[in-house]
Amino acid sequence: MIEDGDRGFTLGDGLFETLLVEDGLVRRAQMHWDRLAAGCAVLGLPAPDWGAIATPKLTEPGRFALRVNWSAGSGGRGLDRPKPMRPQMSFVVASSPLPGPARLVTASSVRRNAMSPASRLKTLSYLDNVLAREEARAHGGDEAVMLNTDGNLACAAAANLFWIAEGRVFTPALDCGVLAGIARAQLMAAHPVQEVAAVREALDGAEAVFLTNSLVGVRAVASLDGRALAPHPLVGSLRAALEL
Amino acid sequence: MIEDGDRGFTLGDGLFETLLVEDGLVRRAQMHWDRLAAGCAVLGLPAPDWGAIATPKLTEPGRFALRVNWSAGSGGRGLDRPKPMRPQMSFVVASSPLPGPARLVTASSVRRNAMSPASRLKTLSYLDNVLAREEARAHGGDEAVMLNTDGNLACAAAANLFWIAEGRVFTPALDCGVLAGIARAQLMAAHPVQEVAAVREALDGAEAVFLTNSLVGVRAVASLDGRALAPHPLVGSLRAALEL
Repeated sequence: MIEDGDRGFTLGDGLFETLLVEDGLVRRAQMHWDRLAAGCAVLGLPAPDWGAIATPKLTEPGRFALRVNWSAGSGGRGLDRPKPMRPQMSFVVASSPLPGPARLVTASSVRRNAMSPASRLKTLSYLDNVLAREEARAHGGDEAVMLNTDGNLACAAAANLFWIAEGRVFTPALDCGVLAGIARAQLMAAHPVQEVAAVREALDGAEAVFLTNSLVGVRAVASLDGRALAPHPLVGSLRAALEL
Repeated sequence: MIEDGDRGFTLGDGLFETLLVEDGLVRRAQMHWDRLAAGCAVLGLPAPDWGAIATPKLTEPGRFALRVNWSAGSGGRGLDRPKPMRPQMSFVVASSPLPGPARLVTASSVRRNAMSPASRLKTLSYLDNVLAREEARAHGGDEAVMLNTDGNLACAAAANLFWIAEGRVFTPALDCGVLAGIARAQLMAAHPVQEVAAVREALDGAEAVFLTNSLVGVRAVASLDGRALAPHPLVGSLRAALEL
């Protein structure tokens, strides 16, 4: 349980990671812990002492999402953080079935704030992403394409965004307000990817669009704003590369 | 206590109000309840049924802040909200002494996202404001001036922003990414105020700068980015007008 005055609850002051647990095996744990520590440095939060923390043991077969919350904890006055801070770790476990290809809808009601360091982190202030997802659902999609405050492509609500054009793979650069995704980094290590600032129309000429995140790896995109997209062989081979 | 999986905690999915309680009297309660209901409509949250909710009784003498949280509650999968939602109300009470005149520092590390509906609401995703306040504190201030993603003035981290120039009162328009403050509305009803989109330099020529919020009413500003500002008689009379 979380205290009523926990700043993660009252102010969204904190970070999280979502780790894939497959048949009892936690995937890419060190990369998640490193990213969480890097985010703490950006936000001015003490980093967790992993030696003092017992993460839940998941031994059941199947795919699970282990969500690790690192909140700024209770204390302080209004927005002002307490000195010293007493961050709190908590966990949520959920089953995580593999979804089918995504049906993307471009969110128009909310833009991603490229001018906040939070836009590059998994923070407990994720309402803009919730709103983008709601808009996609309301229009028959199951995931949103988010533009940033400059009008350029940023990411999906809970995934990084990639597209293939003339045989090359593109993704929005981190300074477009993009989460530094772990699967994104793995994909870029496995295959040449060009990081760009690109407007939404760049996707209209794409041969394929796909998403990455830690829970799913590579996820194909079946449609974008109602336009059907055919399966693309490179997406399949990139998916296989990330499953290793 | 808040459930570990509460979406207010995990995603900042929810709203809050902060009410002044003076000597046992809750100030401007109906305006706060109306604003919370209006925010629910924007975010797609069910509004609270006030008949079913018992707010804490505060009978002690003195000034207190009653914070009312209205979170999206538990359930759903990842960003997707559950259908139906089961929002949760919770409360935090803190003493609320009147602060002295503010020492403002313009935040440069984070901008306010005018392109999110959340920028006009008191949401549980308040990390950008926490970061702005931290930056102001780190530079000897006690409150931040936040610019928006267009580079125009928006508000303070936990207050609305006003200034006086050539005898007239100005404030950033709501579509600059500004919380629709209750004290802001009261001040605008008590005195002519021009809502504008203005760059940071507009404050350099101002005769006075002041803040409003529900807990403090009108708060004078003693300095802005290190430049001392003399007390201004109009700020004093506006403060008195809001205390009625």
